[in-house]
Amino acid sequence: MSRVNYGEPLVMLAALIRWFFLASITGVIVGVGTSLFLLGLNYLSEQTAGVSLGVQMLLLPLAGLLNGLILYYGYEKVKNRENDSVITAVHERFGRMPLKTGIVKPIAAILTLSFGGSAGKEGPSAHIGGTLASWFARLIRLQPETQKVLVTCGISAGFSSVFGTPLAGTIYGIEVLTIGQLRHDVLFPSLVAGVTSYQVSRWFGIPYSYYRYQHEVPHLEDLFLKMIIIGIFCGLASWLLIEMLERTRTLFQSIQQRFHIWKPAMPLFGGIVLSSLLLFLPTDYLGLSLPLMGQALAGEQVDFFTFFWKALFVAITLGSGFYGGIGTPQFVIGATAGNVIARMLDLDPVLGAAVGMMAVLAACSNTPVAAIVMGFELFGSSIGMYLVTACVTAYYIVGHRSVYPDQRVIFPKT
Amino acid sequence: MSRVNYGEPLVMLAALIRWFFLASITGVIVGVGTSLFLLGLNYLSEQTAGVSLGVQMLLLPLAGLLNGLILYYGYEKVKNRENDSVITAVHERFGRMPLKTGIVKPIAAILTLSFGGSAGKEGPSAHIGGTLASWFARLIRLQPETQKVLVTCGISAGFSSVFGTPLAGTIYGIEVLTIGQLRHDVLFPSLVAGVTSYQVSRWFGIPYSYYRYQHEVPHLEDLFLKMIIIGIFCGLASWLLIEMLERTRTLFQSIQQRFHIWKPAMPLFGGIVLSSLLLFLPTDYLGLSLPLMGQALAGEQVDFFTFFWKALFVAITLGSGFYGGIGTPQFVIGATAGNVIARMLDLDPVLGAAVGMMAVLAACSNTPVAAIVMGFELFGSSIGMYLVTACVTAYYIVGHRSVYPDQRVIFPKT
Repeated sequence: MSRVNYGEPLVMLAALIRWFFLASITGVIVGVGTSLFLLGLNYLSEQTAGVSLGVQMLLLPLAGLLNGLILYYGYEKVKNRENDSVITAVHERFGRMPLKTGIVKPIAAILTLSFGGSAGKEGPSAHIGGTLASWFARLIRLQPETQKVLVTCGISAGFSSVFGTPLAGTIYGIEVLTIGQLRHDVLFPSLVAGVTSYQVSRWFGIPYSYYRYQHEVPHLEDLFLKMIIIGIFCGLASWLLIEMLERTRTLFQSIQQRFHIWKPAMPLFGGIVLSSLLLFLPTDYLGLSLPLMGQALAGEQVDFFTFFWKALFVAITLGSGFYGGIGTPQFVIGATAGNVIARMLDLDPVLGAAVGMMAVLAACSNTPVAAIVMGFELFGSSIGMYLVTACVTAYYIVGHRSVYPDQRVIFPKT
Repeated sequence: MSRVNYGEPLVMLAALIRWFFLASITGVIVGVGTSLFLLGLNYLSEQTAGVSLGVQMLLLPLAGLLNGLILYYGYEKVKNRENDSVITAVHERFGRMPLKTGIVKPIAAILTLSFGGSAGKEGPSAHIGGTLASWFARLIRLQPETQKVLVTCGISAGFSSVFGTPLAGTIYGIEVLTIGQLRHDVLFPSLVAGVTSYQVSRWFGIPYSYYRYQHEVPHLEDLFLKMIIIGIFCGLASWLLIEMLERTRTLFQSIQQRFHIWKPAMPLFGGIVLSSLLLFLPTDYLGLSLPLMGQALAGEQVDFFTFFWKALFVAITLGSGFYGGIGTPQFVIGATAGNVIARMLDLDPVLGAAVGMMAVLAACSNTPVAAIVMGFELFGSSIGMYLVTACVTAYYIVGHRSVYPDQRVIFPKT
């Protein structure tokens, strides 16, 4: 049944060409913005990489104070911080984002991460992407609905540049907006923006790691059941991360209100708490913790509670008011949790880490399809079936929570 | 922000376990049903494989007459045939399907395909899956909403068994219900049912083919643009197939009404038309036409108009009232169209066929995510980016048409 008229392919082609240009330009702009952020982050992180424990313990409160000051003075809406989330912007304001926070927040994130705050680099990248796309849309005076799509493109482009997986980045940028569905209508523009942005970042020399799974994958049956167990475990780890984030945020807020503490000082206290934890725990949990993820993915022995400590560091960092993303922590927690549970199930810990990493992403961000596609892009298709089982299971177990509280529940999970 | 109470992981776990059992049983039942259908089809197809052209020209009208009689007498609702589509059942009747057509339709499909009618085996498999799942749901007295999910599982299981790609089958079964979104909530049960059903079919010895793409994939840039061209071409090929299906159906209906022809005789006339075409055209376009697809995927030289002739044969077969699926034709048309356009673009025709096959599936069925995942499962992840570009482009170009007119448009594409 042809629901629309005969000229539809021509109309669609025109729409396609228009989006191809708009999305390509967005991709270039976002690629440049995200790459500059990542280069800045890499540069400052290298400067602080080798510092002694004492210096590190000083850097953390300092980063906290700087974060507090920057966010408080550089950015008025600190009282209602969620309002400038890109997710809210797409849902409530046709994607309109203030340009100012597109500069302030990345600087705060670079300080957080390179001075030892435990967080991610994905959120800031998506923030840059959304902000620049919104700026570009206003520059060329797009209509609100078109602007909204272009901002979604910007978010996808930001994720593609930071993940190094353009396809998964594209889908993640769309899927992360809601819980319970993946809309198709923005796929093409987002894909064009994502691929372009990723290419720009490669041109800037941003390094990416892929870990093809080379081992023989054992065949189905009981492995399928074991993957459900890994999924359940990773779902619970995701639940833990989300709850800890929420609880520490509430705790720091109530302390601030109870003792009438000057708001910008709160991350300073968070920094002090993190520094004191360093008296008992290694510095591995600071910053992005990519070495921990690398060890887990290489199949090395990982301590059982690694995922717990990482979640705690992240919760204190973000809960006390540092600005940073929440993407990388999901990878670190997922890879380490997957590694240890796989060992307990007598499975290859490399497979466990790969699958666990994607399962926690699927659960925490409510993005099962993006996680599955990213698994394919990072590890190859040989682990496909196991990947999917663990991702989908974890996605259910975590329930209707999210590390992004602004996500809209479109369809409940069961 | 925890939106639901603390016990949610436990509630989700209980839901997961319940669905695991329900979906596994559904998967076994559907796996047995689909396998018997596929075995019957393979058996009868072998019997008719070597017949002479004369016999073949007699078999086609005979199959038409048998189809007409079976559908007319075995199945009352012939006047409003769409009413027992599984898609409509899920949308309008909580998935309730009459058990009778679950037997009548597969028999008609086996006759159609093995006697030379040009159609597919996917639709009948999904029909078997949906019918058996609906029967099982009523047997154990499930609530309507739960029954609806279980029927979706059955559809996914049917596709998994017939495709041989459990993951893509699962997603296809969910995505094919609507245009414009992929709902997440049925992912877990459908996946369990899909994997189980696929395993059962393997146990029955159903043969599957996978074509890993072994060649070196050239790197991005202009290939990305060429993939958009392939996507546009495959989108137009999809548009052609859908329009031809619709036109021939209308044509045969108006002839029937104009000349007051006895309804069961219409497929007989369709068979005669097909037989007369054999005077000018090879028999390659009859049945499933898997050899054509195989040639295209092997990179052999394929005639430019192959996809057109295949579409014509399929349109006459299904339009005149034969019963059969529309999945395999999409593969054949996509692979041959992709092969020829790739050659014109100076690309590897193997890559073109692989990508084109998935692009036509994405467009005709409005299932871009399933097509992408199937591409990964069939060809490996090395072609990922190109696959996606072509699939998404074709999906747009085809507009809001579908080979499944019962699909609901949830979100328009642009």
